[in-house]
Amino acid sequence: MTNKEEKKSWVQTVSLTPPALQDNTADIDRLLEALKSRLRTKGSDENIFIEIDFDLLKTIPGLLRKWNYKACCVLFKNRGNCVLIKVLDPDKPAPILGLAVDLGTTRVVLRLIDLYTNKVKSELAFDNPQISVGPDILARIHFAEQEDGLSRLNNLIIEGLNKAVLRICGSCNSDPEDIYLLAVAGNTAMTHLFMGLDPHWIIREPYIPVVNSPGTLKTKDLGIKVNPSARALIFPNIGSYFGGDLISGIMFSGLNESEDTAILVDVGTNAEVVLGNKNWLIACAGAAGPALEGGVTKMGMMAGPGVIDGVFIDPVTKNITIHSIDDKKPIGICGSGLIDLAAGLFTSGMIDIRGKFTGSAGNSCLTEKNGIMHLVIVPSKDSTTGEDLTISQTDLDSLIRSKAAMYTILETITSSVGVGFSDLCRFYVAGTFGSFIKPESAIAIGMIPDLPVEKYKPLGNSSLGGAVMALTSTLCFDEIEKIRNQITYMELNVNQEFMNLFSAAKFLPHTDLSLFPSVKINQD
Amino acid sequence: MTNKEEKKSWVQTVSLTPPALQDNTADIDRLLEALKSRLRTKGSDENIFIEIDFDLLKTIPGLLRKWNYKACCVLFKNRGNCVLIKVLDPDKPAPILGLAVDLGTTRVVLRLIDLYTNKVKSELAFDNPQISVGPDILARIHFAEQEDGLSRLNNLIIEGLNKAVLRICGSCNSDPEDIYLLAVAGNTAMTHLFMGLDPHWIIREPYIPVVNSPGTLKTKDLGIKVNPSARALIFPNIGSYFGGDLISGIMFSGLNESEDTAILVDVGTNAEVVLGNKNWLIACAGAAGPALEGGVTKMGMMAGPGVIDGVFIDPVTKNITIHSIDDKKPIGICGSGLIDLAAGLFTSGMIDIRGKFTGSAGNSCLTEKNGIMHLVIVPSKDSTTGEDLTISQTDLDSLIRSKAAMYTILETITSSVGVGFSDLCRFYVAGTFGSFIKPESAIAIGMIPDLPVEKYKPLGNSSLGGAVMALTSTLCFDEIEKIRNQITYMELNVNQEFMNLFSAAKFLPHTDLSLFPSVKINQD
Repeated sequence: MTNKEEKKSWVQTVSLTPPALQDNTADIDRLLEALKSRLRTKGSDENIFIEIDFDLLKTIPGLLRKWNYKACCVLFKNRGNCVLIKVLDPDKPAPILGLAVDLGTTRVVLRLIDLYTNKVKSELAFDNPQISVGPDILARIHFAEQEDGLSRLNNLIIEGLNKAVLRICGSCNSDPEDIYLLAVAGNTAMTHLFMGLDPHWIIREPYIPVVNSPGTLKTKDLGIKVNPSARALIFPNIGSYFGGDLISGIMFSGLNESEDTAILVDVGTNAEVVLGNKNWLIACAGAAGPALEGGVTKMGMMAGPGVIDGVFIDPVTKNITIHSIDDKKPIGICGSGLIDLAAGLFTSGMIDIRGKFTGSAGNSCLTEKNGIMHLVIVPSKDSTTGEDLTISQTDLDSLIRSKAAMYTILETITSSVGVGFSDLCRFYVAGTFGSFIKPESAIAIGMIPDLPVEKYKPLGNSSLGGAVMALTSTLCFDEIEKIRNQITYMELNVNQEFMNLFSAAKFLPHTDLSLFPSVKINQD
Repeated sequence: MTNKEEKKSWVQTVSLTPPALQDNTADIDRLLEALKSRLRTKGSDENIFIEIDFDLLKTIPGLLRKWNYKACCVLFKNRGNCVLIKVLDPDKPAPILGLAVDLGTTRVVLRLIDLYTNKVKSELAFDNPQISVGPDILARIHFAEQEDGLSRLNNLIIEGLNKAVLRICGSCNSDPEDIYLLAVAGNTAMTHLFMGLDPHWIIREPYIPVVNSPGTLKTKDLGIKVNPSARALIFPNIGSYFGGDLISGIMFSGLNESEDTAILVDVGTNAEVVLGNKNWLIACAGAAGPALEGGVTKMGMMAGPGVIDGVFIDPVTKNITIHSIDDKKPIGICGSGLIDLAAGLFTSGMIDIRGKFTGSAGNSCLTEKNGIMHLVIVPSKDSTTGEDLTISQTDLDSLIRSKAAMYTILETITSSVGVGFSDLCRFYVAGTFGSFIKPESAIAIGMIPDLPVEKYKPLGNSSLGGAVMALTSTLCFDEIEKIRNQITYMELNVNQEFMNLFSAAKFLPHTDLSLFPSVKINQD
């Protein structure tokens, strides 16, 4: 939001001048006029329209009289109209809650917000129950094409959400009935399944969704069990491969309001990249390989207790020190741990610039299984599984392909608009993964450019963060629309030039070492 | 509408460019973009928002593919949003109908419109079934305060309308399912009862309605049996005594777009008057007495077969010639007939400037009943009732009070803004009554100012006419809102000055004869 001071809440308590002979505006219009002047930006003469459900309209005159022409109003937006959702007794303030939803393919994260104070009441995450049908988008879309497949997938997520709503409300002594606003940010396929929209064409040329901007829906129509009058904003997408979670993330980062050019990267199976400033935005998405999501290495997994998220290798002794989440006995490694590990192996000389084991780790740690070299990171006696936690040459090869793809995508998007890495004022890293990654390590393996580390800014769950913004400021709807309309989506052409860049990036940190002056390798 | 050429239909058939890799807008957004560019005014960059019901949204991708990315769309408006109501097969054009409703206290008139051609398919009128509960607004509002009173009144009109919808559709071989748009114009109390809104406060100080601008409602919510997706625009009111029927009438007259100042008069039990031009509008309403509605004289009645609507009196022979509707045997007299009669009596010298019988009618025609003089207009042998049709001194006194009230209201509103009658470029007379009135007669009794008769323009059912406009042009919603916001409503203060003007107007045509130079009286 450009004018921070003009940020306004969706909850407005208004005190009306009671009607008189000289001031005979009707009850409904009297209330709406007061709300309009509250919502209007200072000095603006914009025309604000407020719609009301007919059932609510009927009750308002009686309530206004009972409450001496005062009312606490819950509003939201539905395309060009604001919507008056509920009026409540201003003298007996009932809770008014909003629910932000990050609708991930794997995890769904909820944040419950008190809309009076805009403070977080509770947060909760759960596995997307659609995993039982298919682990990824492709499998689920194929499943949706079976008889009842779509409605089964839709039921899974809606029922999962309803259960989670009960749990999150239970955790803070709240009532689902007090939830009036939802903001849901997810990738295009997930939001389609969430709305029960046929995802068939998302994965088929020319890859178009049913809808880009679903707008605001009635939660009743979606089957979500919160207040029956509640409305859900579904974040718009730009296409099948650039979803509402990213639009939400861009808003959360503030990239769209930055004077100087910055970049936002969301790394997962896909790397989604947005480059720009307040005047222009360009985006692309490309397969970065699953290595970074912990989906490929034998010991790879999502972050969680006992998962290794940090690795330090002494360049002289080659001694490996690990950090596991909650200091639990190690069980596996997540993306950020893997990057740390690869960076340590490389800078200590245990792997070479091609990412191959050099043998300097010592024979005791390197073993061969089925003709593939494995390095023991945690011996069996120290692991939860009772087995050695190892990284194989295959794992490293896969990681290097991923990091090379990422770097190539970053090179491609910046050069497409003639921006050099050094022109970037900030490098935002979105996603849980982004919060844990150490920029030094990612730079050491040449996954991200060799910028001063203070330019890197982890955003955490930016998709959830943007959803919270939409619940807590009336200005966000316009902002979301503006971001959506402003983005130029660049189709990544995997052509000869891309492949050349990719090949050059398949070395540690890069064939062109001058691009990574800060990376120091132990030469013993 | 200022730019007649920009008038657009709510029915739009669009042919979309099918999606391609380079043009991957989603199905819904592709359709909405095409519709937006259709609705947009030439050269304007206005932001148009289109909402869709979620159920309809789900069906669109399948339909677009089936119809090769062509669709016939029915749109309407809901406050700031346009609404996509229905998509239909463009190659098998199904009927698309709109229903304009003039919701009168006494009569309800329907006009069924073909929305492709904007031509009238059928018209039908029926008595407002609420008459069974109470003849006028006051009686009905009191009835609404009884237990179930409001819902009974609401049911009466909704069921009455539903029956009429079946009849009007039957009359032209149409199906109520093909009605997608309704526009309903009525006075404030009637629209409240129509929507089932409590009218209690309309008749109690400070006389405020529940709502001024109800906007567009779902016909389902109102209980109207047409297409389940249909929407009804309820014309907004300005207050308890200035209803949507008048807003509709103003739009129909074009007063709001006139360069020169004009006046619009709707005469009934209340006289509603609007004065202004495209820059300003001022309105007032005042009791003109029921004499003009045919409610007072013994033989007075609404226009219908056999009702006398024209009277000519030979100034020399005093011979009375009547015209009855459909040339049927006379049964009574309507307002326009009564004005003709009074004008004839006066100009032939049968009544004096106070409106009293002079006796020059001859003894054969003048009789005395209960001490009150009566003039036989139609002898018993020629009337349907088998009784003499007469006009009494009481009837004439009542008519004179009504005409004096009307003239005084006209004087008051024009002088309040310093406009003389001669400044008026046009004098619109609304209502069925207005269509039949002879300006010469109304001038002769001093009911309306002595302007050249060509300045008088009867509008017919202007309330219905405005409702039809809203169904047939996308520009009308803004126009209606503009009219509503532009009107200054002037409370008529019945103070000493008003009473002085009223007293002066209680003569035929007026105490100040110089105001009526064209009125010639037979001096024999």
